[in-house]
Amino acid sequence: MPTRIARAGIVAKTRLAEAAGVVAELAGWLEARDLGPVFDDETAALVGLPPDRPTCSRDDLPNHCDLVIVLGGDGTLIGMAGRVANAGADIPILGVNFGSLGFLTEITLPELYPSLEAVLDGTAQIEPRLMLRAQTMRDGAVFSDRLALNDVVITKGAMSRIIDLSVAIGEQPVMRVRADGLIIGSPTGSTAYNLAAGGPIVHPAVDALLLTPIAPHMLTNRPIVVPASSEIRIRPAAGASNDEVFVTIDGQSGHDLQADDVVVVRRAERCVRLVRALTRTYFDVLREKLKWSER
Amino acid sequence: MPTRIARAGIVAKTRLAEAAGVVAELAGWLEARDLGPVFDDETAALVGLPPDRPTCSRDDLPNHCDLVIVLGGDGTLIGMAGRVANAGADIPILGVNFGSLGFLTEITLPELYPSLEAVLDGTAQIEPRLMLRAQTMRDGAVFSDRLALNDVVITKGAMSRIIDLSVAIGEQPVMRVRADGLIIGSPTGSTAYNLAAGGPIVHPAVDALLLTPIAPHMLTNRPIVVPASSEIRIRPAAGASNDEVFVTIDGQSGHDLQADDVVVVRRAERCVRLVRALTRTYFDVLREKLKWSER
Amino acid sequence: MPTRIARAGIVAKTRLAEAAGVVAELAGWLEARDLGPVFDDETAALVGLPPDRPTCSRDDLPNHCDLVIVLGGDGTLIGMAGRVANAGADIPILGVNFGSLGFLTEITLPELYPSLEAVLDGTAQIEPRLMLRAQTMRDGAVFSDRLALNDVVITKGAMSRIIDLSVAIGEQPVMRVRADGLIIGSPTGSTAYNLAAGGPIVHPAVDALLLTPIAPHMLTNRPIVVPASSEIRIRPAAGASNDEVFVTIDGQSGHDLQADDVVVVRRAERCVRLVRALTRTYFDVLREKLKWSER
Amino acid sequence: MPTRIARAGIVAKTRLAEAAGVVAELAGWLEARDLGPVFDDETAALVGLPPDRPTCSRDDLPNHCDLVIVLGGDGTLIGMAGRVANAGADIPILGVNFGSLGFLTEITLPELYPSLEAVLDGTAQIEPRLMLRAQTMRDGAVFSDRLALNDVVITKGAMSRIIDLSVAIGEQPVMRVRADGLIIGSPTGSTAYNLAAGGPIVHPAVDALLLTPIAPHMLTNRPIVVPASSEIRIRPAAGASNDEVFVTIDGQSGHDLQADDVVVVRRAERCVRLVRALTRTYFDVLREKLKWSER
Repeated sequence: MPTRIARAGIVAKTRLAEAAGVVAELAGWLEARDLGPVFDDETAALVGLPPDRPTCSRDDLPNHCDLVIVLGGDGTLIGMAGRVANAGADIPILGVNFGSLGFLTEITLPELYPSLEAVLDGTAQIEPRLMLRAQTMRDGAVFSDRLALNDVVITKGAMSRIIDLSVAIGEQPVMRVRADGLIIGSPTGSTAYNLAAGGPIVHPAVDALLLTPIAPHMLTNRPIVVPASSEIRIRPAAGASNDEVFVTIDGQSGHDLQADDVVVVRRAERCVRLVRALTRTYFDVLREKLKWSER
Repeated sequence: MPTRIARAGIVAKTRLAEAAGVVAELAGWLEARDLGPVFDDETAALVGLPPDRPTCSRDDLPNHCDLVIVLGGDGTLIGMAGRVANAGADIPILGVNFGSLGFLTEITLPELYPSLEAVLDGTAQIEPRLMLRAQTMRDGAVFSDRLALNDVVITKGAMSRIIDLSVAIGEQPVMRVRADGLIIGSPTGSTAYNLAAGGPIVHPAVDALLLTPIAPHMLTNRPIVVPASSEIRIRPAAGASNDEVFVTIDGQSGHDLQADDVVVVRRAERCVRLVRALTRTYFDVLREKLKWSER
Repeated sequence: MPTRIARAGIVAKTRLAEAAGVVAELAGWLEARDLGPVFDDETAALVGLPPDRPTCSRDDLPNHCDLVIVLGGDGTLIGMAGRVANAGADIPILGVNFGSLGFLTEITLPELYPSLEAVLDGTAQIEPRLMLRAQTMRDGAVFSDRLALNDVVITKGAMSRIIDLSVAIGEQPVMRVRADGLIIGSPTGSTAYNLAAGGPIVHPAVDALLLTPIAPHMLTNRPIVVPASSEIRIRPAAGASNDEVFVTIDGQSGHDLQADDVVVVRRAERCVRLVRALTRTYFDVLREKLKWSER
Repeated sequence: MPTRIARAGIVAKTRLAEAAGVVAELAGWLEARDLGPVFDDETAALVGLPPDRPTCSRDDLPNHCDLVIVLGGDGTLIGMAGRVANAGADIPILGVNFGSLGFLTEITLPELYPSLEAVLDGTAQIEPRLMLRAQTMRDGAVFSDRLALNDVVITKGAMSRIIDLSVAIGEQPVMRVRADGLIIGSPTGSTAYNLAAGGPIVHPAVDALLLTPIAPHMLTNRPIVVPASSEIRIRPAAGASNDEVFVTIDGQSGHDLQADDVVVVRRAERCVRLVRALTRTYFDVLREKLKWSER
C-alpha cells in the first residue's frame, strides 16, 4: 500500500539541543520537495521557528501530516505512536536515533535521507506493529482508557514487597501471580522491560501478546505467550491485602488501582506502522543491541 | 467440521499391562456401536486378541481408521501423532492418560466414554496442533526427513562441553549459539524440554515456532519466538571444532550431524488434531501440571 | 554453649486471635517450670493478661529474658530478630508457625514442647544466622542505621521504570546496575525475595552475602555471592536521572535515597541464634517449601 | 608466605605455535636469573629445545620446579592445576593468556615480566583456589579418583532426554534432580559452565561449593551454594530408567556411570595457588569478561 506523502511532520526529543541542526536541515529538505514540514510546538521552539509559522501540539500533529519523522530515542517514538493511534491516523512513523541504535528508532542519521526517499518513492518497507489497549474498569465504568506500544505493567508500590493478582483470559482463569508485578507486552515490547524480567524475545510479526511476571514468588510462574486475540483481565486477588497497586502504560504514565478495579488489556483496533531501516533486518538490530557478536 | 467416525483405532502404550482391561472394555464399547475397532499388532498382543482378528502395524494404523484412541502417556501420543501425519491422514487423536495427567493426554480414564461420545456426536472440541518438519541436508541431498510434534533438538555429545551453531531464518543470519544445544520447538512443545531450558510457555493457538538455546555461554542469547512461516536453518558454525553434534526428534530418535550438514526446520504441511478434554481448558492443564495452586 | 534459661519471653503475631489459647497454655507450662514467662504488651493484650502482671514493649523484651518464643510467621520472627540484635542480647529465638511451615519458623505446634525441652536440657541445635547492618550515609553523617535478617533492598519508585546504581565492595567498583532494584541478602534471606528475583539458595552456614539485581536491563548482570567480610557500598549512579530510589529493610521499613547518599551494607557484629526443629534439616525444609517431592 | 623461587617451569598450550617466540624469550629471562627454566616435553618440542637439554613430562613437571608459568588459555591452566595438586606440590601458577583475557589466565603478555618480578620479590598477590575431589565408588571400591579446579558434571547421553539423580550431603537427602545434568562446581568454576546453566557467580574467597542443575524439569530446582566442608553424594535415582549417565571432570575427561555407582565430591585436601594480575581485581576481570561496561 504505497501511501502518497503530501506533508511530513517533524518531532524531536524534548530539549535535545543537538537535534536543532538536523531538524533545520531536514526542514529545508522537506520544503524543497513541497512536503511541509509540520512542526509541533516543542520542536518549533527547539529550532527557533519564526512565530508566524504555524505549529500544532504533539497530540494534534498526526491530524496534519501523513508521515511523522521522529528524531530522538525509543521513548520519543513510543510517545508519538500513542498519539498517532489515538488520533486514528493511519500514517507511518520514521524513527531516527541520536546516540545509540534503538530497538524502535533503528534508522541512523546518515540513513535518514535515503530512508525518506524510499518512503516517498514507495520502496521502503513499512511494518505494522500491534498496539495494546488498556482499560481500567471501576464501579462499572471505564475509568481509564489508554494505548501502549510496548507494555502495560501492573506493579507494586516502592515500599511494599509483593502484590497478589488474579489473571484471566476472557472468562477463563489463567493464573494467580504473587510477584513484584506483571508485564502485559506486545511483541514490540518484548525487547524492552519484558526482557529484563526474563521474558522471551517475540518477533513483531508473531500475532501474540506476552504475560511476564516480575520476580514471581511461585517459581513455576513462567512467561506465557498467548494469541493476540486474547482479552486479558487482571485484578487484585480477592481477599489479598495489597498495599498499593499501580498500572503504568509504556513506562510513561499510569494510575493506582483500587481493590475492585479490573484492568482489561487487548489488542488495539489499529496498528502503528514503522518505517524499517533499508539495510538492517530485525535480527540485525537484535544482534547489535544484545551484542550477539560472532564470538 | 464434524467428522463422521466409522472406525476407531486403539493404541496402548507398549507393555502397559494395566491397560489390557481398559482396552478390552473399550473394544467392546466400540464394537457395540459398529465402530471397529482396529488394533495395531502390539496392542492386539497386549489384550491377547484371537489370531484370526485382523491387525496392522502402528505405522499403517492411521490408514485404517478415522479416529485414533491412544491409551498411555504423552510419549505414546507423540509417537502416534508422527505416524498419523506421515500417513497423510487427517484424523483426530484422543489421548487418555494412565497415571498422572499429561500435557497432551489430558483426558482421564473416567472421562474416556463421555469424550468419545462427544467426538461421535460432533460436539467435542478438536484442536489443531502445528507440527514441525526437520530435514537434514547432506551433500546436496535430503539425508533425513522427519516430523515432530514437540521439538527438534540439536545437542552436544555427552563428554563434550559445548557446541557452536549458526542459526539463520531463510537467508538471514539470526544468531551464533555456543551452548549445550538448541531447541526448535512448536507451541505444543513449549511445555516440554523448552520449559526446562528456560523458554516461555506458548499457547498452541499462537502461530509460531520457538528457538531456545540450552545453557548458552553468551548470556544474552535468549529464547526467541518467530512466525510459524519461518524456515529455520541450523548448521555447525564454520571453523568451529565441534566434537560431536546430534539432532533428535521429539526426544525419540535422531542421528549425528557432520560439519557441512544443514538442518532445516519448518512448519509441517499438516497439523495433527487433538480431542480436548470436555471440562478442562489449556490453562486448567497448565495450572494443574505446574502446580499453580491458589497460594 | 548450653545456655541456662531462666526466663522465657513470648511474642505472638500481632492480632493473631487463634494464638491466644496456645499462648495461655504455653504461659502455664513455663510458669510451672518457674521460667517466667515475660510478655510484650501486644501479646499480653491478646491473651487478656491481668493488668497487675508486668509486661514490657517488644523492643525491650530481649532485655528481660534469655529465650524468645515467637508464635506466628516468618515476618514476626524477623521483627524479633532485629530487636534481639539491637538490644545486644545474645539469646536464642524459637519460632513456631501457625499455618504453613515457614523457612524461619520451622517448628510446628505439636513440636513446641519437645523443642522447648530440648532447649532447656541443652540438647537442641541452635544455629547462628548472620545478620546484615545497613547504614545510609548522608552529608557526611549516618542518616540511618538498621539491622536486617533477610535483606536490604534498593528499589525504584512504583511509577518509574528503572534505577541506575553503582555498586562497590570497599573501594573496588563491582558493577553498574540498571534494573528495578538490587537485593543485598544474607544466606537466610536467600530463600526469600532473592529467590523470586532469580538468585541462588545459599545454605546458612556459608559465610557470604548475596548481591542479586532485580530485572536487570543488562542481561549479563547476574547474582553474585561474595565473602561475608565484604563492605558493600551502593549509591545512585553519578549523573543518572533516577526519579525515586528507596531502601527497605527486611521488607518492613525504609526510606528514600537522595542523589548523594551511600548505602553501606556489611555483616552485623552479632548473629541471631535460631532453635532448629528437632527432626527437620535445612534441606528437609527446602524440599517441603519448594515442593521438591520425589517426582 | 613469600615462597623462595629457585626454578620455574614453563608450560605452553599444546601446538600453540605463536607461543614459541615468547617461550624462548622467557627461557632466556629465567636463565639470566638462574631460575632454570624446566620444560615439559611438549613445550620443549614447541621451541625446538636441544635434545641434550633435560625435560620432563607434564605430569612430572611440578616435582621439578617451585613456580609454573602457563602460556595459553584457561584450559591449559586447568590441566596444570590438576597436575600440581596431584603431585602434592604447593607451588604457585602464573597464567598468561594469548588471545582474549581468561577468567583464570588473567595476566596479559605485556604484564608477564612485571608479574614475574613481583612473584620473585614476594610482592605478588597469590590467591588460593579451592579444588574439588571426585571419587566414583563402584562395587565397594574407589573406581575413579580425580581432582577438578572448575567442576564435576554429571550428564545425560546425547540422545537421551533426561537423567534422574538423587543428591545427598553426607547422609542427608538434598534433592532429586530430573534434568540434563548436574554441575558440582567450585567458586572458581562459577564463571564457567555453571554460569551458562543459570548458576550464580561466587567469589573465589567464599568457602563454598555449588550445585547447579542443568535444564531441570522441576522448575523449583534451583542452584544451591553449600559449605565447602560438604560431602556431596550423587547417584542415579533408585528405580530410574536412566539410559546413559556420564561424569566429566573439568570438561576434559570422564567415564560413564553404572546404576549402583555413587559419585562423591568434596573439597580437595589442597588448594591450588594462582598469581593474580598486578592491576586487575577479580571484579575487573568479571566486568571485562561479562561486558559490564558502564552503560
